Amino acid sequence: MTDQVKSYLEKERARHLEEVIEFVRIPSVSSSSEHKVHMKEAAEWLADSLRKAGLEHVEVMQTNGHPVVYGDWLHAPGQPTALVYGHYDVQPAEPSGEWETPPFEPVIRDGKLYGRGATDDKAQLYTHIKTVEAFLQTEGRLPVNIKFCLEGEEEIASPNLAPFLEQQAERLAADLIVISDGPMHDEGVPSICCGLRGLCGFQIDIAGPKNDLHSGLYGGGVANPVSALVELLASMKDADGIITIEGFYDKVRPLTDADREASQPLELDDAKISSELQVPELYGEKGYTFLERTTARPTLEINGIYGGYQGEGLKPIVPASAGAKVSCRLVDEQDPDEIMALIRRHIDKHKPQGVTVSIQQSHRGKPFFIPPDHPYIQAAASAYTDGFGKAPVYIRSGGSIPIVEVFSRVLGAPVVMMDFGLPGENMHGPNEHFHLENFDKGIATLCRYWRELQSLPGQA
Amino acid sequence: MTDQVKSYLEKERARHLEEVIEFVRIPSVSSSSEHKVHMKEAAEWLADSLRKAGLEHVEVMQTNGHPVVYGDWLHAPGQPTALVYGHYDVQPAEPSGEWETPPFEPVIRDGKLYGRGATDDKAQLYTHIKTVEAFLQTEGRLPVNIKFCLEGEEEIASPNLAPFLEQQAERLAADLIVISDGPMHDEGVPSICCGLRGLCGFQIDIAGPKNDLHSGLYGGGVANPVSALVELLASMKDADGIITIEGFYDKVRPLTDADREASQPLELDDAKISSELQVPELYGEKGYTFLERTTARPTLEINGIYGGYQGEGLKPIVPASAGAKVSCRLVDEQDPDEIMALIRRHIDKHKPQGVTVSIQQSHRGKPFFIPPDHPYIQAAASAYTDGFGKAPVYIRSGGSIPIVEVFSRVLGAPVVMMDFGLPGENMHGPNEHFHLENFDKGIATLCRYWRELQSLPGQA
Repeated sequence: MTDQVKSYLEKERARHLEEVIEFVRIPSVSSSSEHKVHMKEAAEWLADSLRKAGLEHVEVMQTNGHPVVYGDWLHAPGQPTALVYGHYDVQPAEPSGEWETPPFEPVIRDGKLYGRGATDDKAQLYTHIKTVEAFLQTEGRLPVNIKFCLEGEEEIASPNLAPFLEQQAERLAADLIVISDGPMHDEGVPSICCGLRGLCGFQIDIAGPKNDLHSGLYGGGVANPVSALVELLASMKDADGIITIEGFYDKVRPLTDADREASQPLELDDAKISSELQVPELYGEKGYTFLERTTARPTLEINGIYGGYQGEGLKPIVPASAGAKVSCRLVDEQDPDEIMALIRRHIDKHKPQGVTVSIQQSHRGKPFFIPPDHPYIQAAASAYTDGFGKAPVYIRSGGSIPIVEVFSRVLGAPVVMMDFGLPGENMHGPNEHFHLENFDKGIATLCRYWRELQSLPGQA
Repeated sequence: MTDQVKSYLEKERARHLEEVIEFVRIPSVSSSSEHKVHMKEAAEWLADSLRKAGLEHVEVMQTNGHPVVYGDWLHAPGQPTALVYGHYDVQPAEPSGEWETPPFEPVIRDGKLYGRGATDDKAQLYTHIKTVEAFLQTEGRLPVNIKFCLEGEEEIASPNLAPFLEQQAERLAADLIVISDGPMHDEGVPSICCGLRGLCGFQIDIAGPKNDLHSGLYGGGVANPVSALVELLASMKDADGIITIEGFYDKVRPLTDADREASQPLELDDAKISSELQVPELYGEKGYTFLERTTARPTLEINGIYGGYQGEGLKPIVPASAGAKVSCRLVDEQDPDEIMALIRRHIDKHKPQGVTVSIQQSHRGKPFFIPPDHPYIQAAASAYTDGFGKAPVYIRSGGSIPIVEVFSRVLGAPVVMMDFGLPGENMHGPNEHFHLENFDKGIATLCRYWRELQSLPGQA
């Protein structure tokens, strides 16, 4: 970072943080129709902030869902073109009661910004805008060409992004895609994520009697939809945490000794994790470490379950219906549609008696991988070493950013994930927050990254 | 029924129905603290109606919970004393959206009164008050001595009734207890219920991580409380619907050929029931009929389940907690506390890893039985034959009225259940209703019953 850029960022820091707070204050929950107006507000706000940073061709582009915000600066001929992806939508704030301060009234405590969307993805996304601003307001130019593509549907699985990318492939063409939307390996351990798990999400609904029945008069004589659901879900895993859906592991590459050796230095302390999460012990698929279970192995997780009476006390009924939301994280060559087909076959085979089962797939994303020795990844490693004072480690993340796979497929360019979040920042949970020291280090890293890319060949 | 009583009832019928509507309109939901004011209102309203009927010593008696309404008429020396029990509290109306007309805005459609509490137990209870009124307003006296004991906590398992009965044992002393709080066997088939199932209700809570976790970052590495709950619940039954809790059936008397022969004429049409309930088929414990499953066999029913995200779409989390409400119907010599101990032992044995399980028992009631040849039952049979034009059948009900067992134990008197409801009246479900023709037939039956009892010895 030049002294000029550095002193600009120091001088403007307070304003930049105020802007992030303003951004987090907008309750841009993409999954809920009641927040549609806030989605629009967030998109407009973001477009404004791109314009103020000095970006050109800024536009709020309509899709079949929430809009995409676009902007670019393309005055570095012969240099690579980077497409920065981020998302301005956030997860629902529920359970709202568990927040120490309201989710959409962001506050800074102990150097951390608290609020829904703080780390996922508003503050991380904002490091990119402020990096561009710092270059343009001081040096008047960027080392490379940069395009922004900021969507509002990441938290609902980006249903309209793939068609959008296809339609706008020319405008969005780039040599690489850069995304900052996840956590680094650990505090003080910067990392570059070279792999993501895929996702196959679905809902099971079980319909029983036309309405709730008195459990004294009908109990024992009519199939209970909750019991049917419980049996069905229980049939999907065995006592060792192994998924029992036939064919589920067929396209999973077994971990080699070499894999295990490579990830050895990253292994985490089980006792520390279980204490942080306040669970009596860690638990998962037999024969694997926590790191392996959460990054290199596929999962089947029940995200929610419901049916019958949930209020105070007890209501002795046979419930009319029950349902569950389930998602599988996928690895290696697992394909979400193939996995969904296997699950449907399993459910068909274990179909409970006396009820009607229906399945609806909601999420599909393929797993993703980029080799750590790719030049754009090596450039990122240098940038992290500069920004964080420490060489990064190469990790696989257990999360899924289906659009990462979509970007690499549709735009045919490598995806570089430069995360500035931290584990434990409660992404998707209550009291989500972001360590503001990484706001500064993130910008420093990006400043260096754009310069590092200058020396590399681009297609543009 | 004398002509005088008969014509009084005909003349006053419209007013009587208006009163029932007024009664059902009071949302006396005992389980919810927000309805406390309505509980008081219902108790006062009921006391007033006892006074207007001509009863004496009417009093709203405080308990540690909702009050008991008492009243008596004791001017038939040498005649038996009957204690009429009923309850003025009702089940919650949820799910409110499924009601065709609002639960607490009672309406009469096609000769049926719709509203929460219509059949359970407001209109049934009211037949007793109007019978007393008809006698006292025409003949100036009752054939027997009658006491009313109307409680407000039946739907929450009568936590304060047993101590109340013990404290007031002298005032409540009676030769028999009469209760109208259930359905008859079928439309046009009056019945006397000689057996009830007991109840053991409890809640299971499973605590996992301190808050909801991102299922990408933690999924597979931390025990999922919903999965743990699902496994635990699934472990309690096998594929044949047989409860697998060790010792659960130890005190259940196996059905004999004689039992099966006796209940043969009562057997129901499976196809008709499943079509009414809109289920593809009936389902229950292997080797038993629907009637046996719902009256003579014990059950384990999940009444409600919850955990994680239940909103629109999918939220990929590992939920922080999960819970279920479960109740067992008990028969023969099964004891709710013994059963609870067996369940605790089972849960202990199947304790899931990585989470914390807690159990809270909420309901306990012993099974009940009275022999059909008891003189008070035979008198009731004559009364039904008069009131409904048809001799009643003797049945066992699958429901639980734990206080029936409490009454017979604490007051040492036989309990006679004279039900005027019908199956399919959606007791506890949406669109609860009561066939008003049975309001008239019920009163006629009670008029005859009090006369029948005159010829029988009492202790008073």
